Amino acid sequence: MSFLYKSEPARGAVWAKRFAEVAPDIPFHIWPETGDPLAVRYLAAWQPPEKLMETFPNLELVFCVAAGIDNFDLSGIPLSIPVVRMIEPGLAAGMTEYIMLTVLAAHRDWLQYIDQQRSQVWKDVPAQLASSRRVGILGMGALGKPAAQALANIGFQVAGWSRSGHDVDGIESFAGEEQLPAFLARCDILVCLLPLTDATRGILNRKLFDTLPKGAILINAGRGAHLVEDDLLSALDDGQLGGAILDVTLVEPLPADAPLWKHPRVLITPHVASRSQAETSIDVLMNNLQRFKRGEPMVGEIDRTLGY
Amino acid sequence: MSFLYKSEPARGAVWAKRFAEVAPDIPFHIWPETGDPLAVRYLAAWQPPEKLMETFPNLELVFCVAAGIDNFDLSGIPLSIPVVRMIEPGLAAGMTEYIMLTVLAAHRDWLQYIDQQRSQVWKDVPAQLASSRRVGILGMGALGKPAAQALANIGFQVAGWSRSGHDVDGIESFAGEEQLPAFLARCDILVCLLPLTDATRGILNRKLFDTLPKGAILINAGRGAHLVEDDLLSALDDGQLGGAILDVTLVEPLPADAPLWKHPRVLITPHVASRSQAETSIDVLMNNLQRFKRGEPMVGEIDRTLGY
Repeated sequence: MSFLYKSEPARGAVWAKRFAEVAPDIPFHIWPETGDPLAVRYLAAWQPPEKLMETFPNLELVFCVAAGIDNFDLSGIPLSIPVVRMIEPGLAAGMTEYIMLTVLAAHRDWLQYIDQQRSQVWKDVPAQLASSRRVGILGMGALGKPAAQALANIGFQVAGWSRSGHDVDGIESFAGEEQLPAFLARCDILVCLLPLTDATRGILNRKLFDTLPKGAILINAGRGAHLVEDDLLSALDDGQLGGAILDVTLVEPLPADAPLWKHPRVLITPHVASRSQAETSIDVLMNNLQRFKRGEPMVGEIDRTLGY
Repeated sequence: MSFLYKSEPARGAVWAKRFAEVAPDIPFHIWPETGDPLAVRYLAAWQPPEKLMETFPNLELVFCVAAGIDNFDLSGIPLSIPVVRMIEPGLAAGMTEYIMLTVLAAHRDWLQYIDQQRSQVWKDVPAQLASSRRVGILGMGALGKPAAQALANIGFQVAGWSRSGHDVDGIESFAGEEQLPAFLARCDILVCLLPLTDATRGILNRKLFDTLPKGAILINAGRGAHLVEDDLLSALDDGQLGGAILDVTLVEPLPADAPLWKHPRVLITPHVASRSQAETSIDVLMNNLQRFKRGEPMVGEIDRTLGY
């Protein structure tokens, strides 16, 4: 039995070393080197190889190396084979940092100050403290929960919205389609950390923006396809939205002629909110492998009917 | 006996209301209305009036409404009259937010991303987690200590430098001229929160920058006169410094033709890091007034020999 890795070579090298230490009995192959295809039981990949089951008929378990499964081609993977996405502490820590940074930047009027600097304008905006600012997190999963808690710890009024609700201490809970308008109506700053599924594609649209308080600020650290970019531009231009900080865009890299780049109230970061750390993610993977062998549920195992 | 207030009218109105509630026996006058000058025992001001002691010969106590006393003209105030600066929880809370925001922005490469956006460049910088980033706070007073603790709470490696050292849990302490080089050598991000005195004027100069690790980022939320602006520009241009975030400048507002505005690695905010909150500062003032009457030491009483 062997393990096949098909993603960034740098991370592969870290993983190979760790594998040799803790699971010397399982040969570790880095794609395109695969060893005997019939021996491959486990695959970790950014994208599965083509003709997956024809090439590796004894495959039992698939790890996606990303936290979001939306780019991962599941079509060639039988429903009988579990697919696990990467939920690891380094990824959540990096995302929590990014969300604290962007929410503080929105809160402390940085979209305006960054724009004013372009025209050498020194003009202050009356400030308020975090305790009077209402922040909402769309998506209370493995990334949304720690981000919400960190924001509450530094003083913001935080609520979270998810499909089925949550019970995080100190974070107001809103659940399902029905409670979405009430949630949005109390968000001075709205953060999107949803998984991308058919149900959430295009959710950040004009109708949603119109339900927010006038002048609210949008932060998208989910996926570019959550956002209808033309709706954002029109809501910014008529003042319904006060600004946006985007780490993801529909087309990445964002094309040089995209109007988002030059909008005075938009800040762009190039998909850097967070990434999984090679060292901590291999430990999570090894732990999941042990659970699989014992027939226990794994952390990050996806529900093929929900798509995340 | 009466209280004379000489600063922003908006804050004066909040203070007058509170005074009437808790000290109805002390008449509260808002400048230029003073009542009987001989009755004035207490003054709270952004700047004391001219001919202070000639006009108000029975003055016993002076409150400066700012946290920093460097702009306050002490020359007409006899050494026998205590001068108290404004150290209140709202001011520290606002500064802590600003320091978290600026340190996270420096840490997550925002100077580069903001600059890249100007030329529509989508390019990521390899990120690291806060736990591997060393931050140093120059000035561990009423503002520096809570900021240092907040940074440690979100995972940074934090050290503080001050004249006489400190004993804040989890924050490495460096004290005095002698330990300054060792402190600077471990600062990937350096934050200035010093009081402005003859001993600290111009402390952020080329010699100090050369003691930092190459590529360090400077955050100045102290006073503009702490920084030698030409030294900053040359250290940025030859790469010794990786960037700067400035909330204060030598001349404020920063003149439109100042090169700092257009430097690709400088972010300017218009002296908005923090200000005292009218509601919480009046409570601190009333508390100090009680202490004064009982002959106890007051919070924020300045040492006229040190100048802060």
